[in-house]
Amino acid sequence: MKTDHPRDEIVRTLNSAKNVLVATHIHPDGDALGSQIALGNILRSLGKNVFFYGEERVSHLYRFLPGSAEIDSLLPALNGFDCAVALDCGDCNRLGAAMDSLLTVHPFVVIDHHLGHQEFGDLRWIAPERASTGEMVYDLAEALGAELSYEAAYCLYAAIVSDTGSFKYSSTTADTFRIAGELLRKGVKPAEVSGKLFDNFTVKRLNLMRLVLDSLQLYAEDQLAIIAAPREVFIKTGTTQADAETFINYPRSLNTVKVAAFLKETEKGLISVSLRSKGTDYDVAQVAAIFGGGGHRNAAGCKLRDMSIAEVQEKLLARLLPMVSR
Amino acid sequence: MKTDHPRDEIVRTLNSAKNVLVATHIHPDGDALGSQIALGNILRSLGKNVFFYGEERVSHLYRFLPGSAEIDSLLPALNGFDCAVALDCGDCNRLGAAMDSLLTVHPFVVIDHHLGHQEFGDLRWIAPERASTGEMVYDLAEALGAELSYEAAYCLYAAIVSDTGSFKYSSTTADTFRIAGELLRKGVKPAEVSGKLFDNFTVKRLNLMRLVLDSLQLYAEDQLAIIAAPREVFIKTGTTQADAETFINYPRSLNTVKVAAFLKETEKGLISVSLRSKGTDYDVAQVAAIFGGGGHRNAAGCKLRDMSIAEVQEKLLARLLPMVSR
Repeated sequence: MKTDHPRDEIVRTLNSAKNVLVATHIHPDGDALGSQIALGNILRSLGKNVFFYGEERVSHLYRFLPGSAEIDSLLPALNGFDCAVALDCGDCNRLGAAMDSLLTVHPFVVIDHHLGHQEFGDLRWIAPERASTGEMVYDLAEALGAELSYEAAYCLYAAIVSDTGSFKYSSTTADTFRIAGELLRKGVKPAEVSGKLFDNFTVKRLNLMRLVLDSLQLYAEDQLAIIAAPREVFIKTGTTQADAETFINYPRSLNTVKVAAFLKETEKGLISVSLRSKGTDYDVAQVAAIFGGGGHRNAAGCKLRDMSIAEVQEKLLARLLPMVSR
Repeated sequence: MKTDHPRDEIVRTLNSAKNVLVATHIHPDGDALGSQIALGNILRSLGKNVFFYGEERVSHLYRFLPGSAEIDSLLPALNGFDCAVALDCGDCNRLGAAMDSLLTVHPFVVIDHHLGHQEFGDLRWIAPERASTGEMVYDLAEALGAELSYEAAYCLYAAIVSDTGSFKYSSTTADTFRIAGELLRKGVKPAEVSGKLFDNFTVKRLNLMRLVLDSLQLYAEDQLAIIAAPREVFIKTGTTQADAETFINYPRSLNTVKVAAFLKETEKGLISVSLRSKGTDYDVAQVAAIFGGGGHRNAAGCKLRDMSIAEVQEKLLARLLPMVSR
């Protein structure tokens, strides 16, 4: 007996739904927002009513995404929805403060590409082999027989470019390129989207970058790099953690570096850790998992509470140093 | 009557050739070297004898390309060749010192994607609509009925990624993505190639970047940005001006900035100025021309002698401030 692809049941569910709430994870990145907005746009093109939920106001970094202004932090009455979809969200806690309310909507559909997904919701399509949730939404649009609008294509292209570091990460597949090519046929201009995603530094953000780069520490013959952003640097520069999003790429881009870590003190006593590695020998998702986090082999993260940056750094070094020194 | 695609005659020529010299332009970049090595590899797979000519030793930045060690700066007896191919070379002068000798080989085939190509050679396929010469070599391999080796695919992928800034430039097309996808099917790993091309920051270079970014000055409501690298910062960090090559992109990437300038003291009393602008309103080539330099509307440069950085900055401000304040 041939088993349904998990996507097929989701397609049937979305086809029969009338009022759909579309959500993503807190502190959303380009893949999260691009996928969320694109799916909502696609569902609307099929005649559905769509509500875009987001706990926070969309970061200035992503306000260029067409439709981002519709993301609303005021949760409406949830009994009006006959379906909710969480995109790019590997763990229900990442739905944020409204998690419990959101999960009262049924069927609750989960579409995600994170490895080590913490299963939740009623219907799940989890594809860790995909480079981005954006690619999965593209497939879903095809399976739904929806014609992608320019705006949806734009958001999906931004999602894919964001989560592959402009096709540089190992998650990039022939399928990623196939979809990117199809999105260009919808009128998306690669240089325009890349310009918005990558040439969007504010002066405040450049100041933050300078301070964060000043924190660079190298270990194990420069194979392990750590940068840190204590709360003071955000306060001093008038920035938020969203401004620091891609800074991990600087230590990562050092030619000797195998593993890079970025420690951000996002609130007092809460340290958010981003981990990156190169190649197949260093699985940072395993390290993140030790501290209750998750992610992919080459890109993972975790949060540690009631600790200083120095304490978190010590804990991380105890795990990462043996890894790179093997 | 259907006219032949210029490629078709080149295919016939290469099919009947036995001994082929493959060349590219001087100071070759990733597209030049990737295309050159890949075409030679393809021709060898078809049983041809191939000689790879290059005036200079391959830069350390590109020695990771499989086959790059075969590029030879010693020109052999040219009467043994029944075909020569110049790749990515928009002007015969860019063939370098051996130009006159190389052009004695007939038929001389030219394959290039540069706009404003200075025509030379016997058979030309010039396609300025293509993002890279690497894409053209991919098409040629198909037309020749050659099976691409992993090494050739690797070199073509590097060529494409180099000349599109990892698919960020406006030259990137759906065709670029189609070919990139096909190259992955040959076993190319995107992260490996991108890592070699882009993750080549040395710690010294990152230190230089920090010092240069510390020099940032903003004018005219943050529309004009200037950074500077006096000789001391190169000495202090043990770097050369080649290490500073892309730093102009940081002030340029500021969202308020319309015009950016980078002043480098490359030797005592010699200030090299890089200028960048965004959009069509600010022609930095005009400003560079005032100081004896040149370039394009959005990217230009000039050199000023017997002046300090402060003096050059004053002269530049006198020209750039009225421009952005208009």
